Amino acid sequence: MTLAFTEPPSPKPGQLLARGVCRMLAAHGFVTVEEMVPSRGLRVDVMALGPKGEIWIVECKSCRADFQGDAKWHGYLEWCDRYFWAVDQEFPTDLLPDTSGLIVADAYDGEILRMAPETKLAPARRKVMIQKFATHAARRLQALRDPGVAAIYGPDPA
Amino acid sequence: MTLAFTEPPSPKPGQLLARGVCRMLAAHGFVTVEEMVPSRGLRVDVMALGPKGEIWIVECKSCRADFQGDAKWHGYLEWCDRYFWAVDQEFPTDLLPDTSGLIVADAYDGEILRMAPETKLAPARRKVMIQKFATHAARRLQALRDPGVAAIYGPDPA
Repeated sequence: MTLAFTEPPSPKPGQLLARGVCRMLAAHGFVTVEEMVPSRGLRVDVMALGPKGEIWIVECKSCRADFQGDAKWHGYLEWCDRYFWAVDQEFPTDLLPDTSGLIVADAYDGEILRMAPETKLAPARRKVMIQKFATHAARRLQALRDPGVAAIYGPDPA
Repeated sequence: MTLAFTEPPSPKPGQLLARGVCRMLAAHGFVTVEEMVPSRGLRVDVMALGPKGEIWIVECKSCRADFQGDAKWHGYLEWCDRYFWAVDQEFPTDLLPDTSGLIVADAYDGEILRMAPETKLAPARRKVMIQKFATHAARRLQALRDPGVAAIYGPDPA
Protein backbone atom coordinates (compact mmCIF):
# COMPACT_ATOMS: atom_id res chain seq x y z
CA MET A 1 0.00 0.00 0.00
CA THR A 2 1.29 3.42 -0.90
CA LEU A 3 0.37 6.49 1.06
CA ALA A 4 0.16 9.48 -1.21
CA PHE A 5 0.81 12.82 0.37
CA THR A 6 1.85 16.19 -0.88
CA GLU A 7 4.42 18.33 0.85
CA PRO A 8 3.57 22.02 0.71
CA PRO A 9 5.77 23.49 -2.02
CA SER A 10 8.85 25.40 -0.84
CA PRO A 11 8.38 29.14 -1.13
CA LYS A 12 9.88 30.66 -4.25
CA PRO A 13 12.49 33.42 -3.93
CA GLY A 14 9.90 36.06 -4.82
CA GLN A 15 7.55 34.75 -2.12
CA LEU A 16 10.30 34.95 0.49
CA LEU A 17 10.93 38.56 -0.51
CA ALA A 18 7.20 39.20 -0.21
CA ARG A 19 7.21 37.80 3.32
CA GLY A 20 9.96 40.18 4.40
CA VAL A 21 8.21 43.09 2.66
CA CYS A 22 4.95 42.29 4.47
CA ARG A 23 6.73 42.19 7.83
CA MET A 24 8.37 45.53 7.16
CA LEU A 25 5.05 47.06 6.08
CA ALA A 26 3.36 45.70 9.23
CA ALA A 27 5.94 47.57 11.27
CA HIS A 28 4.94 50.72 9.32
CA GLY A 29 1.28 50.22 10.24
CA PHE A 30 0.19 48.77 6.89
CA VAL A 31 -1.70 45.51 6.46
CA THR A 32 -1.00 43.37 3.42
CA VAL A 33 -2.30 40.64 1.18
CA GLU A 34 -0.37 38.65 -1.40
CA GLU A 35 -1.29 37.71 -4.95
CA MET A 36 -4.35 39.91 -5.13
CA VAL A 37 -6.13 40.55 -8.41
CA PRO A 38 -6.99 44.27 -8.72
CA SER A 39 -8.41 43.76 -12.18
CA ARG A 40 -8.83 40.86 -14.55
CA GLY A 41 -5.49 39.59 -15.89
CA LEU A 42 -3.42 41.35 -13.22
CA ARG A 43 -2.09 39.75 -10.05
CA VAL A 44 0.10 41.82 -7.74
CA ASP A 45 2.69 40.31 -5.41
CA VAL A 46 1.88 42.52 -2.41
CA MET A 47 -0.97 44.94 -1.93
CA ALA A 48 -0.79 47.06 1.21
CA LEU A 49 -3.48 49.09 2.94
CA GLY A 50 -2.47 51.93 5.23
CA PRO A 51 -4.29 53.28 8.28
CA LYS A 52 -5.77 56.14 6.26
CA GLY A 53 -6.82 53.95 3.34
CA GLU A 54 -3.58 54.36 1.39
CA ILE A 55 -3.08 51.66 -1.25
CA TRP A 56 0.45 50.61 -2.15
CA ILE A 57 1.55 47.91 -4.58
CA VAL A 58 4.90 46.15 -4.26
CA GLU A 59 6.24 43.87 -6.99
CA CYS A 60 8.94 41.49 -5.78
CA LYS A 61 11.70 40.62 -8.23
CA SER A 62 14.15 37.92 -7.30
CA CYS A 63 16.50 38.32 -10.30
CA ARG A 64 17.12 40.18 -13.53
CA ALA A 65 15.16 37.68 -15.64
CA ASP A 66 12.19 37.96 -13.30
CA PHE A 67 12.10 41.72 -13.86
CA GLN A 68 12.77 41.60 -17.58
CA GLY A 69 10.03 39.03 -18.10
CA ASP A 70 7.40 41.26 -16.53
CA ALA A 71 5.52 43.02 -19.30
CA LYS A 72 2.55 43.93 -17.10
CA TRP A 73 3.88 46.23 -14.43
CA HIS A 74 2.78 49.48 -16.08
CA GLY A 75 -0.75 48.17 -15.71
CA TYR A 76 -0.43 48.15 -11.91
CA LEU A 77 0.21 51.87 -11.54
CA GLU A 78 -3.40 52.92 -11.94
CA TRP A 79 -4.50 50.68 -9.03
CA CYS A 80 -2.43 52.25 -6.25
CA ASP A 81 -1.28 55.50 -4.69
CA ARG A 82 2.36 54.38 -4.66
CA TYR A 83 4.21 51.68 -6.57
CA PHE A 84 7.40 49.94 -5.39
CA TRP A 85 9.87 47.33 -6.53
CA ALA A 86 11.24 44.98 -3.89
CA VAL A 87 14.53 43.23 -4.62
CA ASP A 88 17.29 41.54 -2.68
CA GLN A 89 20.73 43.00 -2.04
CA GLU A 90 22.29 41.32 -5.07
CA PHE A 91 19.82 42.73 -7.57
CA PRO A 92 21.23 45.18 -10.17
CA THR A 93 18.98 48.09 -9.15
CA ASP A 94 20.17 50.21 -12.11
CA LEU A 95 17.76 48.17 -14.20
CA LEU A 96 14.74 49.50 -12.31
CA PRO A 97 12.96 52.67 -13.38
CA ASP A 98 13.78 55.37 -10.84
CA THR A 99 10.25 56.72 -11.07
CA SER A 100 9.09 53.85 -8.81
CA GLY A 101 9.79 53.28 -5.15
CA LEU A 102 12.54 50.86 -4.11
CA ILE A 103 12.57 48.38 -1.24
CA VAL A 104 15.51 46.12 -0.45
CA ALA A 105 14.33 43.02 1.39
CA ASP A 106 15.11 39.48 2.41
CA ALA A 107 12.79 36.82 3.83
CA TYR A 108 12.80 38.45 7.27
CA ASP A 109 12.58 42.19 6.82
CA GLY A 110 12.98 45.03 4.38
CA GLU A 111 13.79 48.69 4.08
CA ILE A 112 12.36 51.44 1.90
CA LEU A 113 15.38 52.90 0.10
CA ARG A 114 13.39 55.22 -2.14
CA MET A 115 9.85 56.35 -1.40
CA ALA A 116 7.57 56.01 -4.40
CA PRO A 117 5.98 59.18 -5.76
CA GLU A 118 2.32 59.51 -4.90
CA THR A 119 -0.42 59.51 -7.50
CA LYS A 120 -3.63 59.49 -5.52
CA LEU A 121 -6.41 57.17 -6.52
CA ALA A 122 -9.78 58.74 -7.25
CA PRO A 123 -12.13 58.25 -4.28
CA ALA A 124 -14.44 55.86 -6.14
CA ARG A 125 -11.54 53.61 -7.15
CA ARG A 126 -10.06 53.68 -3.65
CA LYS A 127 -13.42 52.54 -2.30
CA VAL A 128 -13.52 49.66 -4.78
CA MET A 129 -9.94 48.66 -3.98
CA ILE A 130 -10.49 48.62 -0.21
CA GLN A 131 -13.61 46.50 -0.72
CA LYS A 132 -11.61 44.09 -2.92
CA PHE A 133 -8.78 44.01 -0.42
CA ALA A 134 -11.20 43.20 2.42
CA THR A 135 -12.89 40.50 0.36
CA HIS A 136 -9.62 38.89 -0.67
CA ALA A 137 -8.23 38.89 2.88
CA ALA A 138 -11.41 37.55 4.48
CA ARG A 139 -11.84 34.75 1.90
CA ARG A 140 -8.28 33.58 2.30
CA LEU A 141 -8.57 33.77 6.07
CA GLN A 142 -11.79 31.78 6.09
CA ALA A 143 -10.25 29.14 3.82
CA LEU A 144 -7.39 28.68 6.31
CA ARG A 145 -9.66 28.73 9.36
CA ASP A 146 -12.24 26.39 7.84
CA PRO A 147 -10.96 24.20 5.01
CA GLY A 148 -14.56 22.96 4.58
CA VAL A 149 -15.51 26.27 3.01
CA ALA A 150 -13.29 25.71 -0.02
CA ALA A 151 -16.10 23.93 -1.82
CA ILE A 152 -18.13 27.13 -1.70
CA TYR A 153 -15.44 29.48 -2.97
CA GLY A 154 -13.56 27.11 -5.25
CA PRO A 155 -9.84 26.44 -5.03
CA ASP A 156 -8.45 29.90 -5.71
CA PRO A 157 -10.54 32.85 -4.58
CA ALA A 158 -9.30 36.12 -6.03
CA MET B 1 12.30 14.22 29.91
CA THR B 2 8.86 15.70 29.47
CA LEU B 3 7.74 17.21 26.21
CA ALA B 4 5.36 20.06 26.79
CA PHE B 5 2.90 20.74 24.06
CA THR B 6 -0.44 22.43 23.81
CA GLU B 7 -3.35 21.01 21.89
CA PRO B 8 -5.38 23.67 20.15
CA PRO B 9 -8.49 24.16 22.31
CA SER B 10 -11.66 22.49 21.06
CA PRO B 11 -14.05 24.98 19.49
CA LYS B 12 -16.80 26.15 21.84
CA PRO B 13 -20.46 25.66 20.84
CA GLY B 14 -20.75 29.33 19.86
CA GLN B 15 -17.67 29.04 17.63
CA LEU B 16 -19.13 26.00 15.86
CA LEU B 17 -22.31 27.97 15.20
CA ALA B 18 -20.17 30.83 13.88
CA ARG B 19 -18.45 28.45 11.47
CA GLY B 20 -21.77 27.30 10.03
CA VAL B 21 -23.00 30.89 9.83
CA CYS B 22 -19.86 31.93 7.94
CA ARG B 23 -20.28 29.09 5.45
CA MET B 24 -23.91 30.05 4.86
CA LEU B 25 -22.97 33.71 4.40
CA ALA B 26 -20.21 32.74 1.95
CA ALA B 27 -22.84 30.98 -0.13
CA HIS B 28 -24.79 34.29 -0.11
CA GLY B 29 -21.75 36.19 -1.43
CA PHE B 30 -20.71 37.69 1.90
CA VAL B 31 -17.22 37.47 3.38
CA THR B 32 -16.82 37.20 7.12
CA VAL B 33 -14.48 37.68 10.03
CA GLU B 34 -14.93 36.42 13.57
CA GLU B 35 -14.38 38.18 16.87
CA MET B 36 -13.89 41.62 15.38
CA VAL B 37 -13.84 44.72 17.55
CA PRO B 38 -15.96 47.47 15.93
CA SER B 39 -15.36 49.79 18.84
CA ARG B 40 -13.52 49.60 22.15
CA GLY B 41 -15.16 47.18 24.57
CA LEU B 42 -17.25 45.44 21.90
CA ARG B 43 -16.35 42.17 20.17
CA VAL B 44 -18.79 40.70 17.69
CA ASP B 45 -19.00 36.98 16.91
CA VAL B 46 -19.38 37.37 13.15
CA MET B 47 -19.07 40.48 11.03
CA ALA B 48 -20.02 40.06 7.39
CA LEU B 49 -19.27 42.26 4.39
CA GLY B 50 -21.48 42.05 1.32
CA PRO B 51 -20.57 42.66 -2.31
CA LYS B 52 -22.02 46.19 -2.18
CA GLY B 53 -20.37 47.07 1.11
CA GLU B 54 -23.25 45.89 3.30
CA ILE B 55 -22.24 45.29 6.93
CA TRP B 56 -24.08 42.63 8.93
CA ILE B 57 -23.43 41.52 12.49
CA VAL B 58 -24.38 38.04 13.73
CA GLU B 59 -24.25 37.13 17.40
CA CYS B 60 -24.13 33.37 18.01
CA LYS B 61 -25.90 32.08 21.10
CA SER B 62 -25.45 28.45 22.05
CA CYS B 63 -27.94 28.39 24.94
CA ARG B 64 -30.35 30.44 27.01
CA ALA B 65 -27.72 31.43 29.57
CA ASP B 66 -25.40 32.60 26.80
CA PHE B 67 -28.12 34.97 25.53
CA GLN B 68 -29.26 36.14 28.95
CA GLY B 69 -25.70 36.91 30.00
CA ASP B 70 -25.17 39.27 27.06
CA ALA B 71 -25.73 42.82 28.26
CA LYS B 72 -23.90 44.40 25.33
CA TRP B 73 -25.88 43.48 22.25
CA HIS B 74 -27.77 46.76 21.95
CA GLY B 75 -24.38 48.38 21.49
CA TYR B 76 -23.79 46.39 18.28
CA LEU B 77 -26.79 47.78 16.41
CA GLU B 78 -25.16 51.08 15.51
CA TRP B 79 -22.22 49.31 13.80
CA CYS B 80 -24.14 47.43 11.12
CA ASP B 81 -26.90 47.67 8.52
CA ARG B 82 -28.56 44.47 9.77
CA TYR B 83 -28.31 42.59 13.04
CA PHE B 84 -28.99 38.85 13.49
CA TRP B 85 -29.05 36.22 16.17
CA ALA B 86 -27.77 32.77 15.27
CA VAL B 87 -28.89 29.84 17.39
CA ASP B 88 -29.17 26.08 17.06
CA GLN B 89 -32.39 24.14 16.55
CA GLU B 90 -32.89 23.52 20.27
CA PHE B 91 -32.74 27.17 21.27
CA PRO B 92 -35.96 28.70 22.68
CA THR B 93 -36.30 31.38 20.00
CA ASP B 94 -39.21 33.04 21.83
CA LEU B 95 -36.58 34.61 24.06
CA LEU B 96 -35.08 36.60 21.21
CA PRO B 97 -36.35 40.06 20.30
CA ASP B 98 -38.27 39.79 17.05
CA THR B 99 -36.89 43.12 15.89
CA SER B 100 -33.61 41.35 15.01
CA GLY B 101 -32.91 38.85 12.26
CA LEU B 102 -32.84 35.14 13.05
CA ILE B 103 -30.51 32.45 11.70
CA VAL B 104 -30.72 28.80 12.66
CA ALA B 105 -27.37 27.11 12.23
CA ASP B 106 -25.16 24.19 13.14
CA ALA B 107 -21.44 23.74 12.64
CA TYR B 108 -21.87 23.04 8.92
CA ASP B 109 -24.45 25.43 7.56
CA GLY B 110 -27.24 27.78 8.46
CA GLU B 111 -30.42 29.34 7.19
CA ILE B 112 -31.87 32.82 7.54
CA LEU B 113 -35.33 32.30 9.06
CA ARG B 114 -36.10 35.98 9.53
CA MET B 115 -34.34 38.77 7.63
CA ALA B 116 -33.18 41.57 9.90
CA PRO B 117 -34.63 45.03 9.29
CA GLU B 118 -32.20 47.40 7.61
CA THR B 119 -30.90 50.54 9.31
CA LYS B 120 -28.30 51.86 6.92
CA LEU B 121 -24.98 53.02 8.26
CA ALA B 122 -23.98 56.58 7.48
CA PRO B 123 -21.42 56.62 4.63
CA ALA B 124 -18.57 57.82 6.86
CA ARG B 125 -19.14 55.02 9.37
CA ARG B 126 -19.45 52.42 6.62
CA LYS B 127 -16.10 53.55 5.27
CA VAL B 128 -14.50 53.19 8.71
CA MET B 129 -16.06 49.76 9.22
CA ILE B 130 -14.87 48.41 5.86
CA GLN B 131 -11.37 49.71 6.62
CA LYS B 132 -11.48 47.99 10.03
CA PHE B 133 -12.81 44.80 8.51
CA ALA B 134 -10.01 44.79 5.92
CA THR B 135 -7.39 45.47 8.58
CA HIS B 136 -8.69 42.75 10.89
CA ALA B 137 -8.88 40.14 8.12
CA ALA B 138 -5.45 40.94 6.69
CA ARG B 139 -3.72 40.89 10.09
CA ARG B 140 -5.22 37.57 11.04
CA LEU B 141 -4.37 36.16 7.64
CA GLN B 142 -0.78 37.35 7.83
CA ALA B 143 -0.43 35.88 11.33
CA LEU B 144 -1.52 32.47 9.99
CA ARG B 145 0.62 32.71 6.85
CA ASP B 146 3.69 33.96 8.69
CA PRO B 147 3.80 33.16 12.41
CA GLY B 148 7.00 35.22 12.60
CA VAL B 149 4.99 38.40 12.23
CA ALA B 150 3.24 37.89 15.59
CA ALA B 151 6.01 39.75 17.37
CA ILE B 152 5.14 42.86 15.38
CA TYR B 153 1.40 42.78 15.95
CA GLY B 154 1.29 41.19 19.41
CA PRO B 155 -0.65 38.06 20.26
CA ASP B 156 -4.20 39.27 19.58
CA PRO B 157 -4.64 41.84 16.85
CA ALA B 158 -8.07 43.41 16.88
